[in-house]
Amino acid sequence: MCRWLGYSGGQVYLEDLLFKPVNNLIDQSLSSRSAETPTNGDGFGVGWYGTRERPGLFRSIRPAWNDFNLRDLAANIQSHLFLAHIRATSLATVQETNCHPFRYGNWLFVHNGEIFGVEKSRRDLLTAVEPKYFENIQGTTDSELMFHLALTFGLETDPPGALARMAGLIEQVSRSHGVEESLWMTLGLTDGSTFYGVRYASDGDAPTLFHSRDMEDLCAFNPALREHFGGAARVLVSEPVGRFQEMWSPVPPGSLVIIRGGEIEIRPFRPAPAPRDA
Amino acid sequence: MCRWLGYSGGQVYLEDLLFKPVNNLIDQSLSSRSAETPTNGDGFGVGWYGTRERPGLFRSIRPAWNDFNLRDLAANIQSHLFLAHIRATSLATVQETNCHPFRYGNWLFVHNGEIFGVEKSRRDLLTAVEPKYFENIQGTTDSELMFHLALTFGLETDPPGALARMAGLIEQVSRSHGVEESLWMTLGLTDGSTFYGVRYASDGDAPTLFHSRDMEDLCAFNPALREHFGGAARVLVSEPVGRFQEMWSPVPPGSLVIIRGGEIEIRPFRPAPAPRDA
Amino acid sequence: MCRWLGYSGGQVYLEDLLFKPVNNLIDQSLSSRSAETPTNGDGFGVGWYGTRERPGLFRSIRPAWNDFNLRDLAANIQSHLFLAHIRATSLATVQETNCHPFRYGNWLFVHNGEIFGVEKSRRDLLTAVEPKYFENIQGTTDSELMFHLALTFGLETDPPGALARMAGLIEQVSRSHGVEESLWMTLGLTDGSTFYGVRYASDGDAPTLFHSRDMEDLCAFNPALREHFGGAARVLVSEPVGRFQEMWSPVPPGSLVIIRGGEIEIRPFRPAPAPRDA
Amino acid sequence: MCRWLGYSGGQVYLEDLLFKPVNNLIDQSLSSRSAETPTNGDGFGVGWYGTRERPGLFRSIRPAWNDFNLRDLAANIQSHLFLAHIRATSLATVQETNCHPFRYGNWLFVHNGEIFGVEKSRRDLLTAVEPKYFENIQGTTDSELMFHLALTFGLETDPPGALARMAGLIEQVSRSHGVEESLWMTLGLTDGSTFYGVRYASDGDAPTLFHSRDMEDLCAFNPALREHFGGAARVLVSEPVGRFQEMWSPVPPGSLVIIRGGEIEIRPFRPAPAPRDA
Repeated sequence: MCRWLGYSGGQVYLEDLLFKPVNNLIDQSLSSRSAETPTNGDGFGVGWYGTRERPGLFRSIRPAWNDFNLRDLAANIQSHLFLAHIRATSLATVQETNCHPFRYGNWLFVHNGEIFGVEKSRRDLLTAVEPKYFENIQGTTDSELMFHLALTFGLETDPPGALARMAGLIEQVSRSHGVEESLWMTLGLTDGSTFYGVRYASDGDAPTLFHSRDMEDLCAFNPALREHFGGAARVLVSEPVGRFQEMWSPVPPGSLVIIRGGEIEIRPFRPAPAPRDA
Repeated sequence: MCRWLGYSGGQVYLEDLLFKPVNNLIDQSLSSRSAETPTNGDGFGVGWYGTRERPGLFRSIRPAWNDFNLRDLAANIQSHLFLAHIRATSLATVQETNCHPFRYGNWLFVHNGEIFGVEKSRRDLLTAVEPKYFENIQGTTDSELMFHLALTFGLETDPPGALARMAGLIEQVSRSHGVEESLWMTLGLTDGSTFYGVRYASDGDAPTLFHSRDMEDLCAFNPALREHFGGAARVLVSEPVGRFQEMWSPVPPGSLVIIRGGEIEIRPFRPAPAPRDA
Repeated sequence: MCRWLGYSGGQVYLEDLLFKPVNNLIDQSLSSRSAETPTNGDGFGVGWYGTRERPGLFRSIRPAWNDFNLRDLAANIQSHLFLAHIRATSLATVQETNCHPFRYGNWLFVHNGEIFGVEKSRRDLLTAVEPKYFENIQGTTDSELMFHLALTFGLETDPPGALARMAGLIEQVSRSHGVEESLWMTLGLTDGSTFYGVRYASDGDAPTLFHSRDMEDLCAFNPALREHFGGAARVLVSEPVGRFQEMWSPVPPGSLVIIRGGEIEIRPFRPAPAPRDA
Repeated sequence: MCRWLGYSGGQVYLEDLLFKPVNNLIDQSLSSRSAETPTNGDGFGVGWYGTRERPGLFRSIRPAWNDFNLRDLAANIQSHLFLAHIRATSLATVQETNCHPFRYGNWLFVHNGEIFGVEKSRRDLLTAVEPKYFENIQGTTDSELMFHLALTFGLETDPPGALARMAGLIEQVSRSHGVEESLWMTLGLTDGSTFYGVRYASDGDAPTLFHSRDMEDLCAFNPALREHFGGAARVLVSEPVGRFQEMWSPVPPGSLVIIRGGEIEIRPFRPAPAPRDA
């Protein structure tokens, strides 16, 4: 089980959310309280939107807790929208190209969970990826594959639809390989302006996803930030971080979260049939 | 351009061939004389047959010249058959899973060269890999793909035929994507008893491959080894190593080299049609 | 808190003790049960005596649990005497030269614990190291410093005395900087034939150290080993490994353990005055 | 021999100087033309002044040419003053703490060259470092030691004097160990506002150092920068980068360069006696 955090709001230093709060994500990488996998030491990554159109990306196979470069970068990089991920794996190799976020153009993508039986379905799913996106696949995770399937199914123009079709294809191909309930996931993704979160599992029992309740809660998370957050800051997390668990509202299973300009919308998420020829 | 060295003979320490000779492979990784790419600093690997059936494998993304673990392991590991590779890439990412040798069961595989236009043909070639071998692909190099195509086409039972069909498929698929002369390579591979080398290019102008001429030459390479080499030691190299260039005999372009029990056989190598449904 | 394991006995593959047993040291690196620091993900190392006089050394900053090279090497390297160490640090940087074991000539050294207030005493202690040993210091840990102080005080000729003088100097220098109870440690060290363990703390409350009780217990640890262990196998561990906690006998605080030819001797350990001019 | 580049001027992206120009520093790390050591593949580092008082630091043991994180960071980080360094070593271990720049408070320091016979003088020189600076030493290079000696001798208040005394002490201690001509160096250092360069060798034959001639030359280096450089941009380099060698003016041996607000001053540099009790 991995963990991730996505932020959207006023411009802050990455460290304000990643390192400064008590019980922050990086501390959790070393010793967490609630997750089944107690350590997330198999690499990490952070992608952020700064002064350029394409987001920046820093990924490393070191445990996040002992990487001094991460500490320095988080102290110096400012962003209004970023995604951070800490990894725990027993499947795909620990290498930078398997660290989240994954990037295509101005899109970033993180994932927690897995495709059950992916060793059976992986080859079929890979061949469903459109050639122009296929070239962008650099690693061997099911997460990166999910991202490129969503791209194939129209992520850049219709994110909710593309995510539904991606989930539909994975369930369909997995069933054809005898895996009835294949998907178990939370997703975080963004094009640099709108921020999407998905919580879904084929069997209904999805991993957790939370959103910050309101600005006051975020200020409790790191009071120094009140002046920076702006009026519209929002955080999505795979598990609660910080000292106050009650600041986090659970996203219901089978949901798509859309955050835009501080507004948060939660819709049902259901897999959709994938296009015929995929 | 990468460089590689394969040894078959009496039991020696890896360092006897990799570190001890003047102008050895590891020194060459830092500053070589004859290759077009003067530095091979994008990782390395060594696979060896020791006391177990499955060969051992040590691969790292560090330049071979500054890796102290390699130095220590080479001083302590003994083998009668090993393959070492130093990498220079401008294409696939520098990560351990892209370092040679690649391994499947008791097979090891190294490659120097490239598939021209592989960004166009890669997806088609991947789908030609049989599912049971597909699961073993961990990286993103054209080299690993070539190995798994050869496995798909019968490497374990008919190595010469499988290598010819692998080359045939790559040329055929590449042509269908508009690349007329796609292959440019030397290969080294072994099942732990027989050692194969291939030198081939679609346009006839293949990268170099050399075999050691006789035992006396190898003893000149590292005199301390005379008593260890046994009567049947042979070395294949992508470029000459050591002080004496004249100890190396060039393998002609379009050749398959087979080394078994000290006997060296050189046959013509020609791509063969790949099976219909591949 | 780090963890370590030392083995002395018949020739075994490293994996027989490091990977094969249930609840082995490498599994513990990811999630341990009894230690205060639940994760040992800040690098690891193993030093072993093989067919050469000088021991081999393999150290890496990766967590032991996700390092594929370690797995392969442990499956291929045989030894009658080895020391393995997994690291957790909040002080010295995570880099290979700070990973244990440390080596000098044919000696290996591992440490769990710390010198309290070492930031105050480090400079004085460093200057007490004899120049010929000083040159061998490559990292910045208090552990490596302790080893080189012991070397300075005669480790190569009088191990028990040198260890006592090393401890004495550290306590004396620390006291001069206002740290009354500075030492808290277990040590494992060997010259390739005799194996030494130390359990000591200035305040009497030392970290744990255990030795295997008898051969039957070790066979319960990994039954496949019965034929390899020889008649005189012994294991020292900083914390119990394996399924059966009762196979481990605690070494009393303030003890020096000496293992030679399967015989185990436990003596009191007390710091001794360091030489005048140190 | 290492290579380095320092920039002072209007705010630019790091990539504008490090990656965009033809024959840039990163390209040179792989294959340089003029240096004696043709490859600088033993790690790299960059320190920059951004929006915080303390400069940011990113250092890695990977060759600069194949590090994707560096590429991304250089594309996203803006600075008006930065120092970049690519390393080639045959002495100190390749580890992040041995990569330049070194940092103390708001100071950054890079070095090319060496202290001859440092294995003899290192221990004496270390003990001359004041305790408060000693704690900041994390690696094992002579370069980091030089920096901390300069700090000990007053770098923060009298940079020219401190550098002279540092050089004086090293020459004096080295002579006491039988090394007559010990220093061979260029240095680059800054407190975030003034930028200093030193070119000096005990025997008069120092490694090269160049400064950019004028703004027009810098615009030829990367025309896209004209609007960003501001009126006062200056670059110091250990060897010429870019297409036009004639844009670089050599700094004479035995010189101290001081760049402040675009003004460049070149003074003689001579070692001075170090304080008595050092």
